[in-house]
Amino acid sequence: MVEIRQSIPVDEAIRRIMERVKTGATERISLAEAQGRSLAEDIVASHDVPFFDRSPVDGFAIKAQDTKGAEPDTPRRLVVVETLGAGYVATQPVVGGKAVRIMTGAPIPEGADAVIMLEHVTETLEGDQPVIEVTSPVAAGENIIRRGEDMKEGTVLLEAGRQMAAGEIALLATFGYGEINVFQQPVIGVFATGSELVSVDEPLAPGKIRNSNSPMLEAQIRQAGAIPRYYGILVDDFDQSYAAVVGALKEVDYVITTGGVSVGDFDYVPAILDKLQAEVLFNKVEMRPGSVTTVATVGDKWFFGLSGNPSACFVGFELFVRPIVKTYLGSSTPHLRKAAALLTTDLGRPNEFARFVRARLTLEDATLSVTPVGLEKSGIVSSLAEANALLVVPPRTEKLRAGEKVDVICLDMNPGLPGA
Amino acid sequence: MVEIRQSIPVDEAIRRIMERVKTGATERISLAEAQGRSLAEDIVASHDVPFFDRSPVDGFAIKAQDTKGAEPDTPRRLVVVETLGAGYVATQPVVGGKAVRIMTGAPIPEGADAVIMLEHVTETLEGDQPVIEVTSPVAAGENIIRRGEDMKEGTVLLEAGRQMAAGEIALLATFGYGEINVFQQPVIGVFATGSELVSVDEPLAPGKIRNSNSPMLEAQIRQAGAIPRYYGILVDDFDQSYAAVVGALKEVDYVITTGGVSVGDFDYVPAILDKLQAEVLFNKVEMRPGSVTTVATVGDKWFFGLSGNPSACFVGFELFVRPIVKTYLGSSTPHLRKAAALLTTDLGRPNEFARFVRARLTLEDATLSVTPVGLEKSGIVSSLAEANALLVVPPRTEKLRAGEKVDVICLDMNPGLPGA
Repeated sequence: MVEIRQSIPVDEAIRRIMERVKTGATERISLAEAQGRSLAEDIVASHDVPFFDRSPVDGFAIKAQDTKGAEPDTPRRLVVVETLGAGYVATQPVVGGKAVRIMTGAPIPEGADAVIMLEHVTETLEGDQPVIEVTSPVAAGENIIRRGEDMKEGTVLLEAGRQMAAGEIALLATFGYGEINVFQQPVIGVFATGSELVSVDEPLAPGKIRNSNSPMLEAQIRQAGAIPRYYGILVDDFDQSYAAVVGALKEVDYVITTGGVSVGDFDYVPAILDKLQAEVLFNKVEMRPGSVTTVATVGDKWFFGLSGNPSACFVGFELFVRPIVKTYLGSSTPHLRKAAALLTTDLGRPNEFARFVRARLTLEDATLSVTPVGLEKSGIVSSLAEANALLVVPPRTEKLRAGEKVDVICLDMNPGLPGA
Repeated sequence: MVEIRQSIPVDEAIRRIMERVKTGATERISLAEAQGRSLAEDIVASHDVPFFDRSPVDGFAIKAQDTKGAEPDTPRRLVVVETLGAGYVATQPVVGGKAVRIMTGAPIPEGADAVIMLEHVTETLEGDQPVIEVTSPVAAGENIIRRGEDMKEGTVLLEAGRQMAAGEIALLATFGYGEINVFQQPVIGVFATGSELVSVDEPLAPGKIRNSNSPMLEAQIRQAGAIPRYYGILVDDFDQSYAAVVGALKEVDYVITTGGVSVGDFDYVPAILDKLQAEVLFNKVEMRPGSVTTVATVGDKWFFGLSGNPSACFVGFELFVRPIVKTYLGSSTPHLRKAAALLTTDLGRPNEFARFVRARLTLEDATLSVTPVGLEKSGIVSSLAEANALLVVPPRTEKLRAGEKVDVICLDMNPGLPGA
């Protein structure tokens, strides 16, 4: 049976998906588990910063008026009554003629209205009594950071949907968020299909290839912020394949199959979706690679039939699965980032369909350039490891020329590169 | 005691560190554990790709000479003797006048030298026997991808030091690397110091601030590819602090303290390093923030005394700790990535020291621009969450003007942004 499929443009495919996406359920986790997770609540400053008037320097907290008229010839002498480290509070207010030795970060003692820096005074002793000599006047307010000067209580710091890295975690710790609400991570089941597949540790044989798409998808799933669950290779039997997919749909949020979604004879995906009474959003997209890509919903679950071609599988995940995951995680920017870049080389081969060409971005002299990688080998996987972007060639483009400005989609797969 | 410190330029500080770095020990892990880890071996193609002559289309494997002279008026009829799915091998060679129905990815049967596409033939039956009619000649070699055409056995695919994401994992799976050698992840102990610190879930009090640097450092450590171990807040007692650091140095590869490395009164770090007979590489750097930063070696372990100021702590880790971790993990590019970007705003405030200003990169119309964030608040952490780069202001720079090209260091903390 050769099924006739109606192909739709990429934008239309994405539009049909985005009409149906929704955010996931939430859960409460500890800050120690936060890295990489996505906030399900706005985070506000729980107190002013600083929380008290503090000294930004090591020095002496004084009354500014005590230094009035101070000159090298007529220094003012102040008696040091106390030494105050960061974290401690003065035991007495500062009164006229007195000073408190104060460390960076310590709270300004009551009565003091300025801090004079350590290096601007001379420290001496009068008998056993430490004193300082001040030789120039200090203005009231000098070297005091006022409560709330950096940030007011109630300021929104991080919005829901924000993925947490080191900076976000520092903020949460500062404001005492030892626990936070985050979006649950969707669980995505992965099936490989294809009688030609052997698993990674099996020997190759004529006609066989190793199943590389499943481990790749598992990595893409984790990278997107979801949890992969691998269900193995579907056997070449409709009833068993159907039962396996039905079973997985009960356990996970989405199911991805890779391979088997061609116009070949041995493809059970259309029949499985039919029997599941799935709503097929589309089963062919005007794009290369990956034109034979199926996205369907089964109740509130998603089903993705991605191509068995490694490049097509990779691109299909990033274009169609990732935005669903990211929306589930509350992101307001669920798609990979688009940018403009200068093409470094001519690019021919017009196509009726939009092309997504694996490419490498480079950043030099404030300018972003893009070079296709592994251009002519649609099945080869080595270019996937080199690519940090997809170059978008619109349908029916005759030729792109070196130096032209083109659209790229940034991938965030490879650390060390400008990614999404 | 106010210690006198000799400050050195940032480049010299990094040079002193990089003279002493080395790669770590290796371990063997399964492919399922590979994501984010760093290869400790070169990976080569373990076989040709494809591994056999294969069909890139659904069609019929034939002898090209059988189609010689085919025209719509004089079609050639070929008898279909077998149907071959991907993963299967033909049971008999193709002989003159015969064809094998073949699916994408299936191996070319012996005797066939071309594949004619499904849509280019008419399928009929002669009695029960399927036959095809071919109406135009096919060239020998058409629609056959030769063994090794994509890649030859022995080609180096990935070099040691490569960090593994989805593309790398696909490659490893393709070539049957179910286990791989990777660099062990260094373990980094973290101590907070400072009597002013309370932990994340404690209430604030006058004079106190919450310990945000430790969770931030733990996230930075994970992000760099190492494993954090938090040892708590050092108490204000030399002997206990010394014992805690000595204990940690027995258990981990590096120790970081944050805070306590000021010129204030209550800093035990210099005395601890002295008693440890550490080799202090430097204890002051000509940079803002973070001038008071100590890096030392204790035998083959590293000790880092980072500033308690959150920005300074963050920058100190990225400039001085990260390259040591990345080298340990085999990376040949251990430093954060430098780039040029156009400054969007004037930037004044000349300083004797190099400044690392938290900033945000934006990419528009193929051009990278940079805008400082949270410029005036050195202690505030909120800008850490906004920053995806550090703008480098050289020492004694009078003024940088909007539109000028400046150096930036890309951070890879925030997904969704052009990072390192």
